[in-house]
Amino acid sequence: MPEVPKGANFILFRRTGKLLTLSGSGPLKGAIIPSQYKGKLGKEVSIKQGYNAARLTAMNLLLITRAAIKTLDKIDYIVNVEGTVNCTPDFTDQPSVINGCSDLLVEIFGKNGHHTRSAIGACSLAFDISVEISMSLMIK
Amino acid sequence: MPEVPKGANFILFRRTGKLLTLSGSGPLKGAIIPSQYKGKLGKEVSIKQGYNAARLTAMNLLLITRAAIKTLDKIDYIVNVEGTVNCTPDFTDQPSVINGCSDLLVEIFGKNGHHTRSAIGACSLAFDISVEISMSLMIK
Amino acid sequence: MPEVPKGANFILFRRTGKLLTLSGSGPLKGAIIPSQYKGKLGKEVSIKQGYNAARLTAMNLLLITRAAIKTLDKIDYIVNVEGTVNCTPDFTDQPSVINGCSDLLVEIFGKNGHHTRSAIGACSLAFDISVEISMSLMIK
Repeated sequence: MPEVPKGANFILFRRTGKLLTLSGSGPLKGAIIPSQYKGKLGKEVSIKQGYNAARLTAMNLLLITRAAIKTLDKIDYIVNVEGTVNCTPDFTDQPSVINGCSDLLVEIFGKNGHHTRSAIGACSLAFDISVEISMSLMIK
Repeated sequence: MPEVPKGANFILFRRTGKLLTLSGSGPLKGAIIPSQYKGKLGKEVSIKQGYNAARLTAMNLLLITRAAIKTLDKIDYIVNVEGTVNCTPDFTDQPSVINGCSDLLVEIFGKNGHHTRSAIGACSLAFDISVEISMSLMIK
Repeated sequence: MPEVPKGANFILFRRTGKLLTLSGSGPLKGAIIPSQYKGKLGKEVSIKQGYNAARLTAMNLLLITRAAIKTLDKIDYIVNVEGTVNCTPDFTDQPSVINGCSDLLVEIFGKNGHHTRSAIGACSLAFDISVEISMSLMIK
């Protein structure tokens, strides 16, 4: 599971009533970022790689959710996904990248995995990750 | 009304109690993006055009809201608007663009149309739309 | 305290039950932006300056909060911080910048100052401010 960097003053999740809000996460495997998930769409990262980076990010968001509420069975439904894609100024296919996250959520949760979404382009992201995704969800 | 692209696993709105959250939307007329609303502020899109793109986007957000809750009369008040402007690195007038959305909301709903807001610059957006706006609102 | 520009149709805060949502704010001192807090990380703004800009922005968010609920003693806990850093395409240390906001919140509120967070890069921001930060929090 992704961890908050040492000494950082933020947290990975915050529960407010039945709403769980998660910090922006990225395509980490344990503590490392696979090199194929670093860099910009429209340059060194292909749409297929970006899609997989978003899928891996969704996995991490679910790992954090499980740490927060013990079991994914307690998820009622996903509310919102905010996807940011590290890309060049001429890249215009952010949706195909963030679909990697959306598809995984629906594969696992079916109709309850549906969510509202934004997908924008960023000129750069932390540690040169290719995607950063925030999520909020309702707990049963 | 804007539609979710075929095969996409997200939805246009999600209701959580009295809060309605909408997906990021853009300056579409039906299924097409008028050419004057494509491109970057600071380059091919003028502030006037960007303002109108944000206004058209607000219209689309309200069409989606009406589809969600049947009538706009059931809107209590707007909560939050997140505006993203497709622009060049030297463009610094994002607020004047997103005003197109804010102004329409207040023209229609008066004081209840007031909302908190962010307005940031993106190096690129999906389908080269000039603005993308997310919104949340309370239902009576 | 930062003010909404004359004629603008948005507001600085919106209360929904016990949740307070704030508009995106920046590193203003009164009505002016100190020159060292204008510009891009990776170019004219150092990480130290960006950190201080985020810290000043957090101060402004708390001034707005106080205006909204009279006293900061009524804050229960911070929920979420969305940080956007004005930067060059090769800048990848957004977290060190937004830490300026996170650190201040925890210095003042301790454990209740902890929050979920995203920190992304923008190719440009309004008025060339180096950071823009949105925040939401719970009231007692």
